[in-house]
Amino acid sequence: PHGAAVDAARDRQDRMTKPQGALGVLEDVSVQLAGLAGECPPPLPEPAAVAVFAADHGVHAQGVTPWPQEVTAQMVANFLAGGAVVNAFAAQVGAEVAVVDVGVAAELPTVPGLLPRKVRPGTADLTQGQAMTRAEAVAAVEIGIEVARDLVAAGNRCLITGDMGIANTTASAALIAAFTGVDPAVVTGRGTGIDDAMHAHKVEIVRTALERHRPDPADPVAVLAAVGGLEHAALAGFLLAASALRVPVILDGVIAGAAALVAAALHPDASVAWLAGHRSAEPGHAVALDALGLRPLVALDLRLGEGTGALLALPLVQSAARALAEVATFDSAGVTEK
Amino acid sequence: PHGAAVDAARDRQDRMTKPQGALGVLEDVSVQLAGLAGECPPPLPEPAAVAVFAADHGVHAQGVTPWPQEVTAQMVANFLAGGAVVNAFAAQVGAEVAVVDVGVAAELPTVPGLLPRKVRPGTADLTQGQAMTRAEAVAAVEIGIEVARDLVAAGNRCLITGDMGIANTTASAALIAAFTGVDPAVVTGRGTGIDDAMHAHKVEIVRTALERHRPDPADPVAVLAAVGGLEHAALAGFLLAASALRVPVILDGVIAGAAALVAAALHPDASVAWLAGHRSAEPGHAVALDALGLRPLVALDLRLGEGTGALLALPLVQSAARALAEVATFDSAGVTEK
Repeated sequence: PHGAAVDAARDRQDRMTKPQGALGVLEDVSVQLAGLAGECPPPLPEPAAVAVFAADHGVHAQGVTPWPQEVTAQMVANFLAGGAVVNAFAAQVGAEVAVVDVGVAAELPTVPGLLPRKVRPGTADLTQGQAMTRAEAVAAVEIGIEVARDLVAAGNRCLITGDMGIANTTASAALIAAFTGVDPAVVTGRGTGIDDAMHAHKVEIVRTALERHRPDPADPVAVLAAVGGLEHAALAGFLLAASALRVPVILDGVIAGAAALVAAALHPDASVAWLAGHRSAEPGHAVALDALGLRPLVALDLRLGEGTGALLALPLVQSAARALAEVATFDSAGVTEK
Repeated sequence: PHGAAVDAARDRQDRMTKPQGALGVLEDVSVQLAGLAGECPPPLPEPAAVAVFAADHGVHAQGVTPWPQEVTAQMVANFLAGGAVVNAFAAQVGAEVAVVDVGVAAELPTVPGLLPRKVRPGTADLTQGQAMTRAEAVAAVEIGIEVARDLVAAGNRCLITGDMGIANTTASAALIAAFTGVDPAVVTGRGTGIDDAMHAHKVEIVRTALERHRPDPADPVAVLAAVGGLEHAALAGFLLAASALRVPVILDGVIAGAAALVAAALHPDASVAWLAGHRSAEPGHAVALDALGLRPLVALDLRLGEGTGALLALPLVQSAARALAEVATFDSAGVTEK
């Protein structure tokens, strides 16, 4: 039914009361959604939920960011209090926010809205050894799968990736370099904003980690264990589950892009359900999107994470689906064709 | 109060719980909204309404498009029946649709939702003489002003430009060439989709019109009367009124861009209220945006008009405003700064 739904969506786009191709990239989005659902028109991608996977990184000890590690836990509290940008954007576009502790270093209080799924209190320092064990990486992947499954079981028809973790752009750069072969100097960015000296140090940390571990992209779980983060592992599972459940998932920035490289290496067809919500200012993100073959829907130089860029794309994806479902055809509306 | 509101918005962006600058272009949007309103935070730009100004073009007789002229009236009927893409997108993002007949060639029935403001039944052929008289251009500008004023009086806190008119990309190209001095071959595009031969002919029509009229950009109403459209004139008034009322207005594609050049020539400070919703596939649009100093929020190769590209940007503008109003500061949330 998927190929037939794709054909039906392309055919309907060509009969809708507009010039052929006039909706540009959104026509492709609507066709992707139809193919994913196996029906035309596909269900509207709403309600939607963003899952913010939070975790800490042992590489923080290497001085790759000016932010103290406790900010991860403080921002989790901010998400739960509704005070972060992800909350404001989610409220504006009508998405639910779920926060998942998959590996925050601090002990977090048991509060409503926080899913306690800590695999370990932050990864180990990837310059000194493996970031985590293979079993821990698999456990985090499984947590992401479970979160996606539960959000879909609760009625969500669109998933959105979110993330929080001080130092996670360092692990992201290592993952992107490992899977694409692009040099660390190209894929390592300034994250939340660092100076030239710290950036040069960060590049060397990524290079050192890759030289130490020489991770094999043919064994994606080994790459995760060596240089990844617990939120990367969970996001990889989240992305795989969305594809298996045939529910669209909108990817946020460079953390999601790095996780998507892991997921694509685990299952080459997984990207059928993926939409790139935006392209962040982080240079490794564009490299990851190119490797994944994904075109970002928004490009406004955001570099925040949390799911904020993907939330901005949600109304665009919903509008694409709604147009395919609701717009009249030339025949039905009595409009003359050229 | 406007300068103080700008300063307050920049200061608040720097204290919000995110790295400085992490919201990219949306920080600038929020600052613009604060300056426009003269207060920080500014009111959320909702509810919003898109005004679709419809008109016909005498230059249609020169064979610049394969679409018959009656499609303008048929699409107006489609808007009123809720069957067009503008209706689907407006429904998705929660905007009202108002349709204004400012110069459709056909007589239109009196129906709810259609504002009958016909100045004349389409312009005259700009290759044979003036498209309209100076008095008609002024009358259409005043209609745009009234529509904006009425929509704001009805409670709207964000305006959106829309347009419909077969052959209106030809008049847009002539306006953009007249105001920017860029060659017709650069600013004339394929509109709804035309072949090479018709495109070359369309370029020559624009060139011929400019050589015949030699419109003086220092007299914007004269330029409108010589080579513009009635919807361009109305949109210019709509854009001027939004600025005078200090209500943000999101511009759609190349038709709005051409009208904005007219409005900017009439009042150099008018752009304070303007946001470029998107950049269309039409080459003259990028030229107009550059001349206006506007950065588009969405760029997905849309080339439909109707207000569709601007509607996609509405949630982005609203999200920018909501973040400025609702996100906690480092102090208030107890998050450690770097």
